[in-house]
Amino acid sequence: MRDEAWLRELDRLLPPGRLVTDPGVTESYAHDDAEWAPYELPAAVVRPRSAEEVQQIVGVCLRAGVPIVPRGAGTGLSGGANATAGALVLSTEAMTAIKEIDWRERLAVVEPGVVNDHLRAACAEQGLWYPPDPASAPWSTIGGNVATNAGGVCCVKYGVTRDYVLGLQFVTGTGELVRVGRRTAKGVAGYDLAGLLVGSEGTLGVITEITVRLRPSREPEHTVAGYFGSVVDAGHAVAAVAEAGLVPSALEIIDRHCLAAVDEWKHMGLSTEADVVLLGRTDSAGPAGEAEADAMLACFEKGGAGYAVRSTDQQEADALFAARRLAYPALERLGPVLTEDVCVPKGAVPEMLGRIEATARRHDTLIANIAHAGDGNLHPLLITPLGDESAKRRAQAAFDDIIADALDLGGTVTGEHGVGLLKRGGLGAEVGPGVLALNRAVKAALDPHGIFNPGKVVAL
Amino acid sequence: MRDEAWLRELDRLLPPGRLVTDPGVTESYAHDDAEWAPYELPAAVVRPRSAEEVQQIVGVCLRAGVPIVPRGAGTGLSGGANATAGALVLSTEAMTAIKEIDWRERLAVVEPGVVNDHLRAACAEQGLWYPPDPASAPWSTIGGNVATNAGGVCCVKYGVTRDYVLGLQFVTGTGELVRVGRRTAKGVAGYDLAGLLVGSEGTLGVITEITVRLRPSREPEHTVAGYFGSVVDAGHAVAAVAEAGLVPSALEIIDRHCLAAVDEWKHMGLSTEADVVLLGRTDSAGPAGEAEADAMLACFEKGGAGYAVRSTDQQEADALFAARRLAYPALERLGPVLTEDVCVPKGAVPEMLGRIEATARRHDTLIANIAHAGDGNLHPLLITPLGDESAKRRAQAAFDDIIADALDLGGTVTGEHGVGLLKRGGLGAEVGPGVLALNRAVKAALDPHGIFNPGKVVAL
Repeated sequence: MRDEAWLRELDRLLPPGRLVTDPGVTESYAHDDAEWAPYELPAAVVRPRSAEEVQQIVGVCLRAGVPIVPRGAGTGLSGGANATAGALVLSTEAMTAIKEIDWRERLAVVEPGVVNDHLRAACAEQGLWYPPDPASAPWSTIGGNVATNAGGVCCVKYGVTRDYVLGLQFVTGTGELVRVGRRTAKGVAGYDLAGLLVGSEGTLGVITEITVRLRPSREPEHTVAGYFGSVVDAGHAVAAVAEAGLVPSALEIIDRHCLAAVDEWKHMGLSTEADVVLLGRTDSAGPAGEAEADAMLACFEKGGAGYAVRSTDQQEADALFAARRLAYPALERLGPVLTEDVCVPKGAVPEMLGRIEATARRHDTLIANIAHAGDGNLHPLLITPLGDESAKRRAQAAFDDIIADALDLGGTVTGEHGVGLLKRGGLGAEVGPGVLALNRAVKAALDPHGIFNPGKVVAL
Repeated sequence: MRDEAWLRELDRLLPPGRLVTDPGVTESYAHDDAEWAPYELPAAVVRPRSAEEVQQIVGVCLRAGVPIVPRGAGTGLSGGANATAGALVLSTEAMTAIKEIDWRERLAVVEPGVVNDHLRAACAEQGLWYPPDPASAPWSTIGGNVATNAGGVCCVKYGVTRDYVLGLQFVTGTGELVRVGRRTAKGVAGYDLAGLLVGSEGTLGVITEITVRLRPSREPEHTVAGYFGSVVDAGHAVAAVAEAGLVPSALEIIDRHCLAAVDEWKHMGLSTEADVVLLGRTDSAGPAGEAEADAMLACFEKGGAGYAVRSTDQQEADALFAARRLAYPALERLGPVLTEDVCVPKGAVPEMLGRIEATARRHDTLIANIAHAGDGNLHPLLITPLGDESAKRRAQAAFDDIIADALDLGGTVTGEHGVGLLKRGGLGAEVGPGVLALNRAVKAALDPHGIFNPGKVVAL
């Protein structure tokens, strides 16, 4: 497999162990967690350990015209890290240094392969907090989080990854190693290239270092749990929370399919309690937090909760959130999962949840629901029995209907997972040809030779 | 003056009164508030009243190859809205509709000519708050604020304009009217084009509508005032606030030159009290706010305040902040002002202030200081007597030294005013040729015919 000149050159340039062509290994780098998206076996996988090595790799690929598929931990859900035949998968997993945590300036400088939870733990030791918390936080990397502009549970109050990226170092489409952004609190020197790279899914460059903004550690949260008879009722409670002007630090829906799947796997005994659980949290300090928790409880009851309670047991509250985090892997055990990621205005959440239920019935498809409901970001999970081609076709039709409904309600096809391969059609439907052309123009400007993750997000 | 074919075409296409070629009027649109930046008389000024009119104007200019200089209220401080001979100044001042304020979704949709304070007042009526508050808020427009990614006093806690822009409608470099961004809380459908337009200073398109994120109205602020013998001491207090992990809702320095200039104009009697005033605010609710104000007071004392006090008199506190806002126009009455806008890491604030003092002495130049000190954004104001060419040369040398010092301390040449014309050299010094090339590539991609504000930020 190392017979191609560019592979021999890479092998010669890089320290031993960086380049892997063994199909037994490269196979495990062929795709991310989007089970439905197409992929092929890459020519090789390379695991650089420094920005300079990344630059050397990009240089070789530029000269040879070999496409590069950048990859973090491979936990993406849109196929953004899926390989194409002949491509080089560039995994940043070995670039794991937390170079700096600066208490006074409230920032950290990290390599892209640092796992999200590892950064959070290191920050916590200094009384600091890196908020973005995708469900994949125990496994996904900051580089991948930046590439997808990852969201998470606390984003409803604290924003997404882009809100925390101050600066980046990356290798450009012409092979240069550059720094964009800054270390200062503010800055407007030139176009916001750091912001542009965030969410670009590896199509505009390979990120080699990230400077993130941090917050001080926050107050312990109050948890409110509501048990509902249907997702639509839970959606009404979500709309009531928005209507009341509350800003929860988390507001998550978990439906009975998810509860049952987690129970089956982890034996937590959750699914006996209710069909749908709505979990709210507030981290406001002192009496304000108490008042917000009480107000949220009232909204849950107004939305039609069969039972709603302020949790006094921190362990129980944490178990509910752990179930939320485990829902996706638990469902994956039942069969291939096609993941939706639509985001609608907060007031449209009940209507959208109702339409998803109708879509499930219409296409005879099992659709489980988890949702960052507080910011309208829903994750209907379409599950099909392994090898059932007819079920797969019905699920694809349901997937398309959900996208159409989200757009109809003023939403977006992807709230936080990215376009990758799965949402390319949805992107076009959402933004139209004029904006698609602008996306292509940006891609052509920053990746003039088209070597970064070709075919993802936009095609040239 | 209307003898050119493109002017005749514009005049024919647009309703009466939109196009102005009278030099008596166009002269007042020839430059913004950056008195030192070069400008020329434009061929005409046009004041469209709708997105469709803007699109027609861009179409005519594209066909005729006439450059467009977009302009809000003209309060910019870097020359970004300065005209060139033969250009068309496109003023959005007549597009003043607040189209929508949505309480539940916490967003507003506005035309670009809406004055910042007008939007804030309309939001306040509904218990909502649009945070970005540049000192120009009573006059500057949301369109101009977006074009420059304007900051302000509360940014130290609440971020800058970019943090509040959800979506934009704009006319592209090929004359299309498009929408980018979204109305939902989150979204990653394609590259962040809305974010890219923010801070692009009219060089990538003409913004015709803006969707901004809002916050709930906040708690009344507690004010702490510290009176210092020198700006460096005030800088030490600022560093102490950062070191203590406090997040003030404002932290502003006003030096004796500014206090005296405001006194001379408004007779407020401020300058007799101290050489330098440091104003801190916190808007945390309840006991947390009380504790933060006390902690800030302790930091002021630790920094060497001759006198520091928690203000109990809201009128007095507001007067101090009014003085902060009036400092710039007050100084302008003394002679042409060359405005700096460097931003350094918080810990470098005392060192930078010391270097500015040394620069003033070295170049025998009067330098007044106002600063958004809490986020390291300093505004040294270089004042020269009208017509004194030698003083002007010395001020220019001081300006260059301040930029070099800010970069030396890990800062940026512009924290919030933008590159415009004044900071083009500084931009190159800050980002280097590789990133400058990326900026040019983005400009060429989105403005392929080079008609939007040519010569500003980057030259093609």
